Amino acid sequence: MALSKKPVTGMKDILPEEMKIRDYVIGVIKETYGKFGFTSIETPCVENIENLTNKQGGENEKLIFKILKRGEKLNLEAAKEEKDLVDGGLRYDLTVPLVRYYSAHANELPTPFKALQMGNVWRADRPQRGRYRQFMQCDIDILGEPSNLAEIELILATTTTLGRLGFSGFQIRINERRILKAMAAYSGFAEESYDHVFITLDKMDKIGLEGVEAELLEDGFAKESVDKYLELFRGMEASENGLAYLAKKLGDFLDEEVRESLQEIMESVNSTKSADFELVFDPTLVRGMSYYTGTIFEIAMPQFGGSCGGGGRYDRMVGKFTGNDVPACGFSIGFERIILLLMENGFKVPSQPEKAAFLIEKGVAKEELCKVIAAAQEERKSGTQVLVVRMNKNKKFQKEQLTKDGYTTFREFYKDPLK
Amino acid sequence: MALSKKPVTGMKDILPEEMKIRDYVIGVIKETYGKFGFTSIETPCVENIENLTNKQGGENEKLIFKILKRGEKLNLEAAKEEKDLVDGGLRYDLTVPLVRYYSAHANELPTPFKALQMGNVWRADRPQRGRYRQFMQCDIDILGEPSNLAEIELILATTTTLGRLGFSGFQIRINERRILKAMAAYSGFAEESYDHVFITLDKMDKIGLEGVEAELLEDGFAKESVDKYLELFRGMEASENGLAYLAKKLGDFLDEEVRESLQEIMESVNSTKSADFELVFDPTLVRGMSYYTGTIFEIAMPQFGGSCGGGGRYDRMVGKFTGNDVPACGFSIGFERIILLLMENGFKVPSQPEKAAFLIEKGVAKEELCKVIAAAQEERKSGTQVLVVRMNKNKKFQKEQLTKDGYTTFREFYKDPLK
Repeated sequence: MALSKKPVTGMKDILPEEMKIRDYVIGVIKETYGKFGFTSIETPCVENIENLTNKQGGENEKLIFKILKRGEKLNLEAAKEEKDLVDGGLRYDLTVPLVRYYSAHANELPTPFKALQMGNVWRADRPQRGRYRQFMQCDIDILGEPSNLAEIELILATTTTLGRLGFSGFQIRINERRILKAMAAYSGFAEESYDHVFITLDKMDKIGLEGVEAELLEDGFAKESVDKYLELFRGMEASENGLAYLAKKLGDFLDEEVRESLQEIMESVNSTKSADFELVFDPTLVRGMSYYTGTIFEIAMPQFGGSCGGGGRYDRMVGKFTGNDVPACGFSIGFERIILLLMENGFKVPSQPEKAAFLIEKGVAKEELCKVIAAAQEERKSGTQVLVVRMNKNKKFQKEQLTKDGYTTFREFYKDPLK
Repeated sequence: MALSKKPVTGMKDILPEEMKIRDYVIGVIKETYGKFGFTSIETPCVENIENLTNKQGGENEKLIFKILKRGEKLNLEAAKEEKDLVDGGLRYDLTVPLVRYYSAHANELPTPFKALQMGNVWRADRPQRGRYRQFMQCDIDILGEPSNLAEIELILATTTTLGRLGFSGFQIRINERRILKAMAAYSGFAEESYDHVFITLDKMDKIGLEGVEAELLEDGFAKESVDKYLELFRGMEASENGLAYLAKKLGDFLDEEVRESLQEIMESVNSTKSADFELVFDPTLVRGMSYYTGTIFEIAMPQFGGSCGGGGRYDRMVGKFTGNDVPACGFSIGFERIILLLMENGFKVPSQPEKAAFLIEKGVAKEELCKVIAAAQEERKSGTQVLVVRMNKNKKFQKEQLTKDGYTTFREFYKDPLK
């Protein structure tokens, strides 16, 4: 039987050109985050299925690649439903594994613990252009830091990295789950309908304020609540300092400390940033994951429609594993989108080594071959990339191909040394 | 329900200390192989189940983590056996995916194609100390190079890398599948029993020549054949040049070209190598994978019982995908064993950046906070790793912990600047 040449549906092979860019970007990310005191860690790609299906992951839990039990544990005849057949799954993000990791190893880790994770995640999403079922995520997280120093450091580290990769003129949008809730409470929505309201609010980018208004009314919410809610957004747009306006309007619905902390994050970041971007308050920012408890943020690139990454505070997730909550905050870069943008802009990896090709005619004597290889070894020591290959019959074509591949120096070795 | 803190059975979390070493080793590997003209590529971790179960992988095919079909494709009631339930599996090595990749993309790749792959593979082996069900493999392969230049470059590149990582005094054992076969044919074993004979021969390390003799006789092979076979090994041990002795003995059973090529590989490598090791002919080397067609080799480290990596020529695997064979040869480093050896020897990553910690008392004014963060940003620009953290109540203990973690400079910032 002939074998299938294609990768599995929705996943992709990475060709050398893209790989060069990926390796370079990974290097920049590791170096930059390292300067901020983040240390690399890794967790297995497979997690216990129970950990992946405990409602922390929202919609992603529907997209898990599940792993069949093995050996005696697999009892096909007795299996009544899917969960009888599987014991593991491929991780759909790096946050659930990180929290499990921290819960297991907290005693061996510093406080606060600043983690950098770069790894693949899998989601059985409908395949579409530029979106794959296996993709790299790049997360930084700070565990054990209750103050907004976590948010400030995360945003500075992420934006410094983006700046070093050549990105500029972008925005970081920031919001607070507690502001979202205060706005809904102030407007008179019932607490159990908050999530419904936020899902509609999240469409603001696409359907605008009027669209949100129409959808809320259509979904049967009281006109009075919808009016009050929309008035908040309209008033804010017209005011100079949106956050101050909102805090005043919301009054006791919003804890004063929430506003102060958010204000401090924005001022410290905007006054110490090293990249060209702006951190702006955006009360329409929702973010889907159900585990967020405080600040939430997202990268908006002008060149790219959707979000290029995001994160937030999730102070109650460690408690699901250990029974004791630990403050936690993270920021994830949309690694694949970054790569896509760089490739589309014809990005070239800086400072590549000199490339030389040694072409050896077939039949060259053993002693001569040894000399050629020794010469290649010498050049490699001095930093040159040396390819030692057999000379093709069509040497001209071979050299043209090598030139295309970046080789600039050629040396030729013949069976008859006088040639 | 409390969640499980442990990683899945047989897989491991990687702590920061080990991760530092891994990142360093990965860097050295990529740089060194790069100098030899190998380019990084990546394939998805999941492969079509048919590609993984076509008998190329030998025993590893019994150890596959299989992935459940999703959505409508999964029909639990109609499923009669395991294969009705699954459509993918986690790769058990990097060779099968590489060959699939090459078959799909040959038109976009140079000839010869020199690939470097570093990635995780999965095998549902019985868990044991130092052996995990997810582990990193590091393979280099040359596709499209029929001559022994492939073997020479693979062995030089691999050993140069090992040398740069501080390994010395090791051996590369080399053999040829065609020599193995010629020895069996000369001794009069039937062709269909070769594999059986080789499996026994492979135990030489553990049971010695007498053990191999006893087992072959016990398994019912003719005494005459066993005697003839054993005599070859004994005669070789006593002779000065084992390969020459063998070639003479085997006569027409062995193609002259096989001996010449092997001789040339050994001489060129031994005369141009940059690391401290020896390449030696070892007629007892078998290597399990059924896809090898020519030379086979293995790294033997004195500090480590088993093999630390290996490889060989597999000229007929691309043909399984495309119908047309392409010469191919690869060398895989036992990445996890290398890391284990380095950790056991107390290896320290060279040239780490200066580490400074800025401790900020709680309640420091916003303006002061901005100044501290700006100062941290400046120091980071000049290459220092700066950790900005809240000052704990027990500052002494906090600084002790940070010192343990490698921080050498401390700066403290108080609410009352006169403090």
